[in-house]
This record gives sequence, structure tokens and C-alpha cells, in this order.
Amino acid sequence: MSELSLLLVVDLVGIAVFAASGATAGVAKRLDLFGVVFVGFMAALGGGILRDVFVNVQPFAFVDWRYAAVAVVTSAATFWLHPTVSRLHWTVLVLDAAGLGLFTVTGTLKALDAGIPPVGACIIGMITGIGGGLIRDLLTGEIPTVLRREIYAVAGLLGCASVAALDAVHTQRPVSIALAAVLVFVLRMVALRRNWSAPTAPTAPTGPQNPGE
Amino acid sequence: MSELSLLLVVDLVGIAVFAASGATAGVAKRLDLFGVVFVGFMAALGGGILRDVFVNVQPFAFVDWRYAAVAVVTSAATFWLHPTVSRLHWTVLVLDAAGLGLFTVTGTLKALDAGIPPVGACIIGMITGIGGGLIRDLLTGEIPTVLRREIYAVAGLLGCASVAALDAVHTQRPVSIALAAVLVFVLRMVALRRNWSAPTAPTAPTGPQNPGE
Amino acid sequence: MSELSLLLVVDLVGIAVFAASGATAGVAKRLDLFGVVFVGFMAALGGGILRDVFVNVQPFAFVDWRYAAVAVVTSAATFWLHPTVSRLHWTVLVLDAAGLGLFTVTGTLKALDAGIPPVGACIIGMITGIGGGLIRDLLTGEIPTVLRREIYAVAGLLGCASVAALDAVHTQRPVSIALAAVLVFVLRMVALRRNWSAPTAPTAPTGPQNPGE
Repeated sequence: MSELSLLLVVDLVGIAVFAASGATAGVAKRLDLFGVVFVGFMAALGGGILRDVFVNVQPFAFVDWRYAAVAVVTSAATFWLHPTVSRLHWTVLVLDAAGLGLFTVTGTLKALDAGIPPVGACIIGMITGIGGGLIRDLLTGEIPTVLRREIYAVAGLLGCASVAALDAVHTQRPVSIALAAVLVFVLRMVALRRNWSAPTAPTAPTGPQNPGE
Repeated sequence: MSELSLLLVVDLVGIAVFAASGATAGVAKRLDLFGVVFVGFMAALGGGILRDVFVNVQPFAFVDWRYAAVAVVTSAATFWLHPTVSRLHWTVLVLDAAGLGLFTVTGTLKALDAGIPPVGACIIGMITGIGGGLIRDLLTGEIPTVLRREIYAVAGLLGCASVAALDAVHTQRPVSIALAAVLVFVLRMVALRRNWSAPTAPTAPTGPQNPGE
Repeated sequence: MSELSLLLVVDLVGIAVFAASGATAGVAKRLDLFGVVFVGFMAALGGGILRDVFVNVQPFAFVDWRYAAVAVVTSAATFWLHPTVSRLHWTVLVLDAAGLGLFTVTGTLKALDAGIPPVGACIIGMITGIGGGLIRDLLTGEIPTVLRREIYAVAGLLGCASVAALDAVHTQRPVSIALAAVLVFVLRMVALRRNWSAPTAPTAPTGPQNPGE
């Protein structure tokens, strides 16, 4: 299998896993079939859509029909098979960590290639990885999980910084993608196993300010 | 009346109806006058703004002041006249179905004209039709209605597919727009009359997975 | 100090204040460190990101690292120092009014320069000023404050209209920016002092219509 088609396969597997996560959240909220598929679609492709909007090109999710097809088929399958998907809990988490690694790293490179400087490219890369989950949670009326607990976005961000640094010293793309994506994957799996979390603020606040109304 | 100006009038009527729906939701949530007008504006024009962002052009809602004017005036009128608007329940639903048909079909054609392939163009067309209602519900703290019940987006999607198919065999634009928009309208009205709904998942899930945090 | 660098400093102060507002809201919702910084970042830069997406350029927030740096550092500082930030209530409100004035006015000019006509440019300018707060509230599960009470967006909108009018008669940019931004600032401060609010609808509605599902 060539490098390019390997990347495509991994990409589509990541999209399928993100779609399953979105569809499962939709089923849990008692959405109808359309709602489940729509939330699955946005969970799978929303991060990439945001990336392409920021980079200022037509979103890839609309240009290549295979992405939409994988997201829609996986979401619809999850609608009927969700008890099975639930039993695959750890499998889903492992594949999700792989998807996170790939999406953040390739998102960063796409932003760099579009002329966005490293700091911005890393932020766009991170949004590529977490954007789908954010949109999924907003559509289902939840405060996004990624903002509340566990090491998820931070693992992605370290991958973004690594790939940007490797790219700056002209590492070959397949090498830098693999190294950075594996870093994200390992960090995420260790964080899951050890229940690492980012800290929350030391004391309860005295009340919100809401200055920027 | 020329074809073009007829299309414009229908377009503006659709925008007025969507604005009334948004403003009514804003009044129900006790928003102030500005909030009601803002939610009405986004309900009316949010779908078209998303379409233009995805197609990668400056949103038409900001380029042609007549669209904003119709949305703002209708929303402000709804603010003061909302009991009357409520009494027009069926009138609003009928006009809304017409708006859905027109927006999904013209959105699909705009995406095709911008070089987006059929599958993506259909998804963008559907988002043109449902995007305003989605944003309205997010701004007022609701899980979007379109994700939960009734045949609404699916009717729009069938219209998108029809117009893309008609366009692929070089049907004249006015003909394909009319056929596809009428199809959406009829489907939506029949679904309303017969209380058709998309299915929800067969059994309660055993709990959400949240893998893509 | 040159005009340009003065504008940059005011810009960065505005971003810091908006970031503090977002971070404070995040702390109040018990988000973790990453969540607090992310909400602070979006509160500070979300309005400008929306402006640039609508104007159809790569968002400045990703292109110039200083904006991201100020937003991230301020948000992280607020995470640890939020009791102090809470005590600075009035200081924050005053700086926030200054930020609102600057962002709405410069957002309008950026849209005009990109060829968007005055009405659309004013709406984009207003969204530049209120967009960050909107996104902050959506991310933390609140109906946006700006839609519910007080004179905030309307003050910004008057500034947008003023700067567009001044620009149409070829007033020098520094003069028109200063006049319009001061107008917004004064309106907002008077509204705060006198508890001015926009009206809410006269009677309770008989129930939402939800036509645009």
C-alpha cells in the first residue's frame, strides 16, 4: 500500500470512530435517525470543516464524497447497533486516540502549507482534532467535555508543536507525521490509563463577571 | 415580473418567515428587543451565511442590504406583534415549507456552481435550509428541533438530490428549481399533515461513550 | 508612540480584558485549565475570527501570534488569580467598554475595506464586538447575555454606523476611529451607570412556533 493510500485509510478510520462517538451521543439524547446522522457527521468532519474555513479553502468534507459517505454510513450503523458500539468502549477509545493524533498533526501541516505561522497553525491543528467533539456537544446541549476534564486537547497540542518543529528543520513529512501522531496517541493512552486530568481552579469563584456581554 | 425578480421576491418572503420563527423563539425566551432581532436575523440568514462560508465567498447576507433589512424589520415587527404571529400558526408553517424548498434547492445550485461535487453540494444545500433554525435553537439554549423529530431536513435533502440530478442532465435552471422546490414543499406539507417522523433508536442506550472528547 | 503601535496596544488591552471575561466564566463553570484558557481565547478572539471568516481572509488571530499569546497568558493568569479579577469588577467593565468600542469600529472599517457595503459592514463590525462573548456563553452552556439585557450591542452598532458615515465623507481614519470608539465607550458607560436596558416584549407569548425546524 502506498504512503498516500495508507494515510487515507487511517484518515477514514479516524472519521468513522469520531462519527460513532457523535452518533452515540445523539442516540443518548433520543434524537431521530436524521439527528443521529447529522451529529455523527459533524462530530466526524466538523473539526476539518473548521480547519478549512480558517485556512480559507472550500472544506474537504464537501469536496471529497468518501469522507461524507464514511461518516454517514458509520452514524447510521451506530443508530441501529449502538448497544454493540457501547460494548466496544475501549476499542473506541483507542481508535479515537489514533484519530486525535492524526487529525491534529495533519491539520497543523495543512495550516502551515497555507502560509499560517507556527503558533496559529498549532491552534488550528488542535481545533481540527477537538472541533468535531465540541460541535457534537453543543448540538446535544452539553458543555463540551474537552473543556472539563482529562488530558485530550493538550496531548493534541503537543503533537501540533512537535510536527511544526520537525517541519521547521525539514524532516520528511511521513516521518514527522508518524512521530508526532504516535506522541499524541501515547500521551492520550497513558492519560486514560492513569486518569490524568488538567487542574481546575483552586477555589470556587465569587461569581461570574460577564464583562464582555 | 421577470424570472429573476420573482425569485428575489420568493427569497425575501422565505427570509421574512424564517425571521419571524427566530424572533418568536426569542420572545418566548424573554430576550430583549436586540436579542429578538439578532436571533431573527440569524434564523433568517444563518443558513445562507454558512453556505457562503463553505463555498468560500463573502456571505450574500452582508453584501445585499435588502436581505438584512427584511430580516430586521420582520423580527422587530414580530417583537411587537407576536400574539398575532402565533395565531398565524398554519400560515407560517406553509410559508416556512416554501422557504425550506427554495433555500435548499438554490443553496445546492450555488455550491455546484462554485465547483463543489454533487454529494457535498447537496449537504451544503441542506445546511442552507436548516442552518438558520439550528443557530436559532443554539442561541436560545435548545437542542435543535430539526435533529429531534418530524420530516424536515430529509425533505430538503431529497430536493437537493433532485436538483443536482436535474442539473446534471442539463435541465433549464428555472425548471429544475421549480420542480425540486415544489417536491420539498409537498413532502413537507404531507409530513406535517400526517405527522410523519423519522425513527428514533430502538432501545435506550446503555450510556454515552464520549470517546471524541 | 506612533499611531499604529498605539492602536496595537489598545487592541491587545481589549483582547486581554475579553480573555479575562471568558476565563472567569470558565472558572465559574468548573472547567479545567485547558477549558478556561480555550474559553478565554475564544472570548478574546472569536469576534475577530468571525469577522475575518465573513470578510473571507485567514483570521488575524492565527496569523499574528501576539494576539494568541496575550489571550492565552491572560486566561491562564485569570485561572490562578480569579478572586483578584473578581474584585476588579468596575475596572474590567470600563476596559471592556473600551474594547467593545475599538473592536466594533475597526471591524466595520476592515469589512468596508474588503468591499462589503455599509449595512453589511456595520453588522460585521457589531459581530466583531459581541462575537467573542456569544461564543463564550455558548461554550459554557448559557443563553448569550448580550441577547437578554442591557445596552451593549446597540452601543456598538451606533459606533459602526458612525464610523461608516464618517468614512463615507472621507474623514481621516484615526479621527473617525477615535470619534466612533469614544461614542461607543460613552454610551456603554452611561448605560451601565443608569441601568439602561433594551425593552422585552410586552406580554408573555402563547408558546413558541418553531416553524423553521
